[in-house]
Amino acid sequence: MKRILLSSADVPERWYNILPDLPAPLEPYLNPRTLEPLQPADLAPLLPQAVIEQEVSSERWIEIPEEVRAIYQMWRPSPLHRADRLEKVLDTPARIYFKYEGASPPGSHKPNTAVAQAYYNKREGVRRLTTETGAGQWGSALSFAGSLFGLEVTVYMVRASYQQKPYRRILMETWGASVLPSPTDTTQAGRDILARDPDSPGSLGIAVAEAVEDALAHEDTRSALGSAMNHVILHQTVIGLEAKTQMEMAGDYPDVVIGCVGGGSNYSGLAYPFMADRLSGARPNVRFVAAEPAACPTLTRGVYAYDFPDSAGLGPVLKMRTVGHGFIPSPIHAGGLRFHGDAPTLCLLQEHGFVEARAFQQNEVFREAVRFARCEGFLPAPESSHALKAVVDEALLAREAGEARVILFGFSGHGHFDMAAYDSFLAGSLEDYELPQEKLDSALAELPTVGVTA
Amino acid sequence: MKRILLSSADVPERWYNILPDLPAPLEPYLNPRTLEPLQPADLAPLLPQAVIEQEVSSERWIEIPEEVRAIYQMWRPSPLHRADRLEKVLDTPARIYFKYEGASPPGSHKPNTAVAQAYYNKREGVRRLTTETGAGQWGSALSFAGSLFGLEVTVYMVRASYQQKPYRRILMETWGASVLPSPTDTTQAGRDILARDPDSPGSLGIAVAEAVEDALAHEDTRSALGSAMNHVILHQTVIGLEAKTQMEMAGDYPDVVIGCVGGGSNYSGLAYPFMADRLSGARPNVRFVAAEPAACPTLTRGVYAYDFPDSAGLGPVLKMRTVGHGFIPSPIHAGGLRFHGDAPTLCLLQEHGFVEARAFQQNEVFREAVRFARCEGFLPAPESSHALKAVVDEALLAREAGEARVILFGFSGHGHFDMAAYDSFLAGSLEDYELPQEKLDSALAELPTVGVTA
Repeated sequence: MKRILLSSADVPERWYNILPDLPAPLEPYLNPRTLEPLQPADLAPLLPQAVIEQEVSSERWIEIPEEVRAIYQMWRPSPLHRADRLEKVLDTPARIYFKYEGASPPGSHKPNTAVAQAYYNKREGVRRLTTETGAGQWGSALSFAGSLFGLEVTVYMVRASYQQKPYRRILMETWGASVLPSPTDTTQAGRDILARDPDSPGSLGIAVAEAVEDALAHEDTRSALGSAMNHVILHQTVIGLEAKTQMEMAGDYPDVVIGCVGGGSNYSGLAYPFMADRLSGARPNVRFVAAEPAACPTLTRGVYAYDFPDSAGLGPVLKMRTVGHGFIPSPIHAGGLRFHGDAPTLCLLQEHGFVEARAFQQNEVFREAVRFARCEGFLPAPESSHALKAVVDEALLAREAGEARVILFGFSGHGHFDMAAYDSFLAGSLEDYELPQEKLDSALAELPTVGVTA
Repeated sequence: MKRILLSSADVPERWYNILPDLPAPLEPYLNPRTLEPLQPADLAPLLPQAVIEQEVSSERWIEIPEEVRAIYQMWRPSPLHRADRLEKVLDTPARIYFKYEGASPPGSHKPNTAVAQAYYNKREGVRRLTTETGAGQWGSALSFAGSLFGLEVTVYMVRASYQQKPYRRILMETWGASVLPSPTDTTQAGRDILARDPDSPGSLGIAVAEAVEDALAHEDTRSALGSAMNHVILHQTVIGLEAKTQMEMAGDYPDVVIGCVGGGSNYSGLAYPFMADRLSGARPNVRFVAAEPAACPTLTRGVYAYDFPDSAGLGPVLKMRTVGHGFIPSPIHAGGLRFHGDAPTLCLLQEHGFVEARAFQQNEVFREAVRFARCEGFLPAPESSHALKAVVDEALLAREAGEARVILFGFSGHGHFDMAAYDSFLAGSLEDYELPQEKLDSALAELPTVGVTA
């Protein structure tokens, strides 16, 4: 069977929260001003109450509100595909499956949390949301969710992406959002960056700082985060929960679960329901492989330390693998993977040996994207293509080993708004970026001095 | 229920052929040189044998080859959505459903026939396919299908669209196709046009002429047509066959079936399985509404006459509603609706009173596209947005009449490659085009003189 489909009734009724199942307690978030443990109330100017509760909840299962579930049914359950044509091309005994999130209205997994966040904000009387976006996938998802709930949305879009991807901006505007190229001169955080570098290409860290500052400055406004935080990953577990049911229908269980990691929400959302089986001992051998860009190698070259989620030091300080909140990655096309940190839960799991990480260059990634498009039809976003490169490596290893490994990967979004990147690749003008150690060292020198672990 | 889903096993096993059920026999195609009835063998240099047989078959049901059906399962069955949020916004008692074809790899209904045509060509030893494309939806579908079957594909893309939609070109190239802006200087048909007008924006008629000439000039090459012809519509009936099952699951039957018409394949593919019920008397009251652009108003202002499908008079002469094979429509964004003729079967049904037609301007169409995107999430292509305008008109009439009419429409493709058009609309710079009667009259003066009926 090429595609394993569920019915609307099979959209999960609960999200899975990994916090109670982690191999060690998550270290507390710190208040960005005092560097003392953060109190949930400290987050109130930024996030709605229900979301703050989810961020720290120790409940394993959290009910999905009926209104959110009804909206999920616009595009969920998402299909699970067997990539049997790719298997043939690779001549591998591996069985490759992908969970396709590209058929949602914004074209990625991002609305899984955008809709939930918009719902809770609306319920608590919030009128306006601010957010950051890199490639534009998260910004479009929040614009979409805002349009459904009648919330005003302001998106700070990393300038490099704003210029590379005008169609993403128009998409957000079509859903009624205001989109600003970040750094802007409308926030202090933006003005500070522009004073130092008027041509700054921006970064996700700067855009987060602007969105947070804007939210803090307006009573009726909250900020929405697209990745990394516990509540975001919680909402994304619908991906993995559905995939588990679908793998069961296919009569398979993954030997390895692969995904791309920017802030970690797409990958964790797919992986955690399977990770639960590894942590409980039910499936002690399932492996987890995270793919990231060599240009922003948080998991492979970062340090495990407390750091700010934004360039201006306004957001909660998180223990994570980071390349430094001041790090400005090269303008690779996988804008969604240009975040300097990663989800604290995912980093903790990596620290305990449950997650392997791989870093890739643009050209090897796009080579696999084009090969995939030519045999499986669907055109992956540059972000998802990183996962694909790891999948192909794994499938070729399976061939060498003569093992019928079962590979499941997250196809987080389509590449319809990334055609300029495909054009560059096909024309042979796509650049690879080696990150010099000095650039990394200088960004790491600016970490807040709280319990750094190399 | 928001979305009615079928399983992979529910992909139809047979296509529905309307020819034996038409209210009158279809008038024969004519040989373009002799204007005498065409013999099936005359089509052999253009089309594979199996397709020629389907073009003239009187069998009501034609089996879908297992290999084609397996590829359909990459994205089929496509979902049927209830547009209940749009219903609320319109405050209408109408129940609105849409059949969503935008989740296929090329993003439209076009691969339903592209895959079938590529399959038959491959089976008969063809090495290369040529085709025309307007907006690029058909060209991308054939490029996709060609990549699956290892066929070389050359696409003549209407120059206006080639320039408006570079991302569509890149999409086709990603699937391995060669894309040329038509008129080109590589064919006699193209050179003739360029001699008269070096800045010609092109037209579907010119692009068809180039593709046909190229195929005729190469032994190992055939031409593939994206619309209008009987075999194309035959392949598209999977849309309506699935929709019938899904409407039944929803406990509804449409009072009116609506779609946009360029060459007519998307609309006929959805409508004909329901039309069968009207023709048989089982559902005597179901209505059929076709939406077209005012800039290329074949059904509303054309004549019912024999005409060439291409500007150079190379293709089979068809009895259809036409604005003249030399007609060059204004460069509206709905490039897929810029064809000067329409499917002979659909025109015959209109002639016998079974199909109503409406023509719309760009701005009223995009107004509905944006409203739809803001409540139902999905972003319609400019072509599909024409259907949407007709849907809203119908839903508002239902409100006035206080009738709970059931409306089914074809959402033929997404608008991800049409963001420049959305941008123009949102910026207020989108143009409406009134077609002067003289322009129409002068194009109609060039019809071949075979049985013109005003």
